[in-house]
Amino acid sequence: MKISDLVITPLAFADPPLLNSTGVHEPLALRTVVQLVVDGASAGEVVGLGEGSGERDVLDRLELVRAAIIGQSVFDTGAIELIVNAVLGPDVTPIQKRAVFSIVEVACLDAQGKLLGVPVTDLLGGAVRHTVPYSAYLFYKWAAHPAAPGGGSPDQWGEALDPAGIVAQACRMIDLHGFRSLKLKGGVFHPEDEIAAIRALAVAFPGMPLRIDPNGAWSVKTSKYVAGELAGVLEYLEDPTLTTAAMAEVAQVASMPLATNMCVISPETVPEAVRLDAVQIVLSDHHYWGGLRHTRELGAICDTFGLGMSMHSNSHLGISLAAMTHVAAATPNLAYACDTHYPWNSADDVITTPFAFVDGALAVPAGPGLGVELDQDRLAELNKRYVDSGRTTRADTAYMRLVDPLYDPMLPRF
Amino acid sequence: MKISDLVITPLAFADPPLLNSTGVHEPLALRTVVQLVVDGASAGEVVGLGEGSGERDVLDRLELVRAAIIGQSVFDTGAIELIVNAVLGPDVTPIQKRAVFSIVEVACLDAQGKLLGVPVTDLLGGAVRHTVPYSAYLFYKWAAHPAAPGGGSPDQWGEALDPAGIVAQACRMIDLHGFRSLKLKGGVFHPEDEIAAIRALAVAFPGMPLRIDPNGAWSVKTSKYVAGELAGVLEYLEDPTLTTAAMAEVAQVASMPLATNMCVISPETVPEAVRLDAVQIVLSDHHYWGGLRHTRELGAICDTFGLGMSMHSNSHLGISLAAMTHVAAATPNLAYACDTHYPWNSADDVITTPFAFVDGALAVPAGPGLGVELDQDRLAELNKRYVDSGRTTRADTAYMRLVDPLYDPMLPRF
Repeated sequence: MKISDLVITPLAFADPPLLNSTGVHEPLALRTVVQLVVDGASAGEVVGLGEGSGERDVLDRLELVRAAIIGQSVFDTGAIELIVNAVLGPDVTPIQKRAVFSIVEVACLDAQGKLLGVPVTDLLGGAVRHTVPYSAYLFYKWAAHPAAPGGGSPDQWGEALDPAGIVAQACRMIDLHGFRSLKLKGGVFHPEDEIAAIRALAVAFPGMPLRIDPNGAWSVKTSKYVAGELAGVLEYLEDPTLTTAAMAEVAQVASMPLATNMCVISPETVPEAVRLDAVQIVLSDHHYWGGLRHTRELGAICDTFGLGMSMHSNSHLGISLAAMTHVAAATPNLAYACDTHYPWNSADDVITTPFAFVDGALAVPAGPGLGVELDQDRLAELNKRYVDSGRTTRADTAYMRLVDPLYDPMLPRF
Repeated sequence: MKISDLVITPLAFADPPLLNSTGVHEPLALRTVVQLVVDGASAGEVVGLGEGSGERDVLDRLELVRAAIIGQSVFDTGAIELIVNAVLGPDVTPIQKRAVFSIVEVACLDAQGKLLGVPVTDLLGGAVRHTVPYSAYLFYKWAAHPAAPGGGSPDQWGEALDPAGIVAQACRMIDLHGFRSLKLKGGVFHPEDEIAAIRALAVAFPGMPLRIDPNGAWSVKTSKYVAGELAGVLEYLEDPTLTTAAMAEVAQVASMPLATNMCVISPETVPEAVRLDAVQIVLSDHHYWGGLRHTRELGAICDTFGLGMSMHSNSHLGISLAAMTHVAAATPNLAYACDTHYPWNSADDVITTPFAFVDGALAVPAGPGLGVELDQDRLAELNKRYVDSGRTTRADTAYMRLVDPLYDPMLPRF
């Protein structure tokens, strides 16, 4: 059951012009897929899949890791994590190390499941829920990308720059996927406009859980103001302001729970948040927390300290969605509907059978392993797109400046 | 892979007259062994082993659980925990529920490993160490039990009621098992006598890590005094005094780390200890924390909050020792040598090949599962001893009162 290779493939896939507090999504999102090759002895060769950030530094670090883990048992993810940490050395932060290890850990668990004939969920303690609810991820967006490739021609989602546009987008999301909670990416327009959008959603979808996430775009004063205006309307308020200390100030007056994936992003950041009672809900993300087992551990930490648990998402494809669904199914207190960008990107997925939401939820893949299969032709195509693009890093701010040369990403903005 | 039965067997095994802060160990220690029968389909029937408390209430609760888990997938330990909690209901505390669930969880993991052909360690993230160090568990003790059965005839360990007796016991423990750290169960004699015993150990075994655990027998004032007297001598000071708040007072002045298995005993007790910085080392115990996966989670909690990790032991047999060794091997920050009573009780073990320490450590059993096999004849014999004894609960204080009718177990004693 030794690891014999790690095939690392960067890729680029189409992404709509989604607005956020630091700019706008570029026409291509970057991602990395790994294929962990394991010599399964009598079982023959088995390949475990992993997916994560497509940033150049992550790719470079995966290459370093590749040489070091060949020959290790695929079951020894604890030892592999120590190897990853040692190979990457002291100049790479623990958070950066976890971003690399998480990709490998998921691939190991996929391979383990395939070797053993069980779904990844079973390697994490089994499913405590058989479907995992996701929330609709609503974005302010332009009708079309301003720059090539992809520039000029509008996407199927159209423009959403005001409350009516957001409500229309929510209707389409619900029609297509059946979502039963709604999250708005904020921090783009003046808070009064975003308050109006949330109120419009509340009117259009009575009783539907609503969230807004301005990604730290607001001052403490503005955050407190918005929390007051949206009292009784929001399920939770996510990262209204930057820093744990500032979140704690907002939490003292906010009537709704505060959620975060920006101030609690690693074990190192937990103690201060607990000490200050800064947040009430942590958005887990196995890509940040070092894989699926560490995400379950985060669940235990949250449970121990009375924190709720939800899940964060970056732009991603189906391998990550499978991993997210397995770990969510196995984590009892991950009770809030999870975030996912998948509906924005699933047309470019690299798995043979893309996921389909039913009533806003996904059934836990039956496995073995993650229960998804790589489409090698599609992978090659998206890799070619990556190579042809010349892109190596995400740059929402630089892309926004093509349209607005004076765009200032400094936060808080409002 | 469905559970088809849970065979619950209480048993009694010989225990020497070991003294502690609430009395003395009785001639028979009680324990429960479970055999979880799983229909492994093509793999045939598989039996997973678990071991835990032999108290009557635990047996009664296991019987309730038995009926409820038949038909469940052996991989769904998360769901089984929810079932255990539901079946036992609100009148049973979370700590009591975990004591029951832990026995079942270990049996599930043993069965999973047997079904899959891998050691339990591999189901927990793989081994990060291939041998697990244990410490010698030294006790003040009488030469013989005062009461029948077993009364009168001295055991092979002899009397240990003063520093010389403790040093002699340590010599024998090290000769037999090669231990490289020493723990003295204190809280029995006046603290000056116990300080003298630790100093005698320090002289006899220079550089050997030393611990003392009076099980909360000391006041805060006495604890501070002992901490001062043993500064530079102890590796850690375990549970000198009762309650988290009192431990925090001692921690403020103690130069050595404080360790506990009495004030941090469950997730519910963690936040206060963290808030007060009451302890620096938590002694895990999978029997208390709800199994091996929750013990790994405790490791993550300790790591997150900068707490060290060691392991607690009650009187136990080889199934529990196997489980302890697997989880210790898979928990990176469980870096202190673990406690075990095993040398006091191994002659009565119910596994076919009892464990043997080499240089005070155990190799991680190769599996599959826990890697131990039940000796059915021995099990029947120890069960008969349990039935014949008429015993249903541990009563160190009552037993001590046979010798000292006025014995007062009230703590703190000094």
